[in-house]
Amino acid sequence: MKALFLNCSLKGGDTTSHTEGLINDIILHFDALGVDTEVVRVVDYNVAFGVTEDEGDGDEWPSIFEKVKAADILVIGTPLWLGEKSSVATQVIERLYGGSSLTNEEGQAIYYNKVGGVVVTGNEDGAKHACASILYGLSHIGFTVPPNVDTYWVGEAGPGDSYIDAGRDNAFTKSHGKTMAYNLYHFAKQLKETPIPVEGNTME
Amino acid sequence: MKALFLNCSLKGGDTTSHTEGLINDIILHFDALGVDTEVVRVVDYNVAFGVTEDEGDGDEWPSIFEKVKAADILVIGTPLWLGEKSSVATQVIERLYGGSSLTNEEGQAIYYNKVGGVVVTGNEDGAKHACASILYGLSHIGFTVPPNVDTYWVGEAGPGDSYIDAGRDNAFTKSHGKTMAYNLYHFAKQLKETPIPVEGNTME
Amino acid sequence: MKALFLNCSLKGGDTTSHTEGLINDIILHFDALGVDTEVVRVVDYNVAFGVTEDEGDGDEWPSIFEKVKAADILVIGTPLWLGEKSSVATQVIERLYGGSSLTNEEGQAIYYNKVGGVVVTGNEDGAKHACASILYGLSHIGFTVPPNVDTYWVGEAGPGDSYIDAGRDNAFTKSHGKTMAYNLYHFAKQLKETPIPVEGNTME
Amino acid sequence: MKALFLNCSLKGGDTTSHTEGLINDIILHFDALGVDTEVVRVVDYNVAFGVTEDEGDGDEWPSIFEKVKAADILVIGTPLWLGEKSSVATQVIERLYGGSSLTNEEGQAIYYNKVGGVVVTGNEDGAKHACASILYGLSHIGFTVPPNVDTYWVGEAGPGDSYIDAGRDNAFTKSHGKTMAYNLYHFAKQLKETPIPVEGNTME
Repeated sequence: MKALFLNCSLKGGDTTSHTEGLINDIILHFDALGVDTEVVRVVDYNVAFGVTEDEGDGDEWPSIFEKVKAADILVIGTPLWLGEKSSVATQVIERLYGGSSLTNEEGQAIYYNKVGGVVVTGNEDGAKHACASILYGLSHIGFTVPPNVDTYWVGEAGPGDSYIDAGRDNAFTKSHGKTMAYNLYHFAKQLKETPIPVEGNTME
Repeated sequence: MKALFLNCSLKGGDTTSHTEGLINDIILHFDALGVDTEVVRVVDYNVAFGVTEDEGDGDEWPSIFEKVKAADILVIGTPLWLGEKSSVATQVIERLYGGSSLTNEEGQAIYYNKVGGVVVTGNEDGAKHACASILYGLSHIGFTVPPNVDTYWVGEAGPGDSYIDAGRDNAFTKSHGKTMAYNLYHFAKQLKETPIPVEGNTME
Repeated sequence: MKALFLNCSLKGGDTTSHTEGLINDIILHFDALGVDTEVVRVVDYNVAFGVTEDEGDGDEWPSIFEKVKAADILVIGTPLWLGEKSSVATQVIERLYGGSSLTNEEGQAIYYNKVGGVVVTGNEDGAKHACASILYGLSHIGFTVPPNVDTYWVGEAGPGDSYIDAGRDNAFTKSHGKTMAYNLYHFAKQLKETPIPVEGNTME
Repeated sequence: MKALFLNCSLKGGDTTSHTEGLINDIILHFDALGVDTEVVRVVDYNVAFGVTEDEGDGDEWPSIFEKVKAADILVIGTPLWLGEKSSVATQVIERLYGGSSLTNEEGQAIYYNKVGGVVVTGNEDGAKHACASILYGLSHIGFTVPPNVDTYWVGEAGPGDSYIDAGRDNAFTKSHGKTMAYNLYHFAKQLKETPIPVEGNTME
């Protein structure tokens, strides 16, 4: 089973990403469950703006999209700015939407039988709003959203430490991270064994 | 199998509810699938403000909550005002949240193995925002969100007809209503046969 | 000059309201500026669901609406549940919207020349989302939104103390509360002296 | 007086932008009022991801930022995808936020005495949500939001024509566009003549 994390940090390369810190905490649970994981820092790719599968002209979304298609589990990770998910996360949703009219062999959307989750870190506020937006986007294009697949950390109102600097040790965040990993796994396994029946849900 | 619709219209009694019009269109699919359905117009009950299971003093939420507990499928229906779900819908989410620390026999949240969906009607704008908020609320407290379980209708920007007056005949809305009914059914059936494994997701 | 605070706590009477705690902190600045203030705990009134000025049948919104009409400054205060403003706050926006087609003597919306702000408290997350929703609602029906008129407090992710219990001593929240009071005052004073010109903004 | 429109379409160059169509409709009112206008299609610039004023390495945000600093009126224009403002609009808000700790000669945020507005076009849904997010972002960093400065067009639920193809002739959208232009003008003029008093709102 494969889980793909798209880290939508605004910072590329080896720069510290607090969102990646939380992603890595969740990966420990996937390791225990025998799930293969890969983390892609999206901003390291030259992803074009647009709403198609391939915008041409050096657009590197297609190589990320191949990973999405191969994954059973997709998790979007994002930081928060002014209480909103990052522009990179918004772009990823736009590009995923760009593939939403593709179908599997049964005629269902290509994202059917895949499960989605979300990871958010921020200084202080906006996590639930970002989770709602991302999970809705995934659900609307065909992903299944198991219960409790949103894990986040924010600190007290105002400027302050980010996730890693704050000690990476919040009981609520830890507990949610564990439940998220297990529920993504349970549902991905179930959907692999018993795919969504092809009835009432094919694309015309 | 039982599907419960909580119609969060601001208008009670026999008043025309455009949201109920769309709910009724979706019920036709549940009828074909042999799913029992019930529609509750929440504003006809004296639901108290609060975040507990029972606020006492004549609070009628407990009788609605019994229906929620007995249902396999829960659909929240709401109109839009200023681009937001109704106050009644907000109140329903608050009261459902009030029961979120209750557990089933396995120690999971009481909403595990139930599936959730959303129906929205409005003159012109706000449906996706309301869907995102409601589906996230349900997911965060334990409901499963299958793909494509948001059905809505809005008209062109500005004042204009509401759903029923507009002819109740939008191909997009119809198609989504059908897929929603089928996917809620498929997942509810699957979760009845194979409940979510009790691993990594019990409440402490 | 008059400032009206509508506290949209779910709890009535003399129950401790953390939102009211923050409101009271802001009122100290209004006191210093010579602004008369009044706090209404909305849930103590029998406010009917609806989108008109007066829903009849014992609806007590009209008495609150009179206070709104008499105020120069309106501040909505709300707690957070599942990352959203309260159902009472949603209801207040619906009822304010119900008066949005009324006009002043010049034919502008009745809310012209009034300024709006927002106060939010919650355990952990959702403040900016609630602020955005409330300030937009106010702006869309005719209120002016000065810069920096959103004051909030949330704690670290997960269960924890609410505003008053947390010590009521966050530098960011304090600073925002002060700026909010001053900017609401500056703009209300300016609009009293020089109302918005009656050109391009009357209702047809 | 100068009004700057940042068109956050995903499409660059001379490609038809429906958002720009609506922007151009609003500019007619600015022309009548003697306001100088400029439209920047942001995606034509190589804007880096980040939250500083200048991300270096060929980042072309600084040249846009100079225009923002010179403008009295800033309007963000955005299309909608999955009910959300575009990734480009999100990026613009992030970059504006990156300049939010800069101050004017008085020690207030650099955006004080500037007014902000928003223009949205989409096939069908999400306008108010995008308006709320953008206006809140602007307000939180120092812009003034006059009443009724959100103009949008969306069509009926589901796939369909975009703004220009739909005939560019919606009475509600036209009326809002006019009011928006006049109120932005009225407030920008007032703030030029009587800037926000320097009391209670300087940055520490």
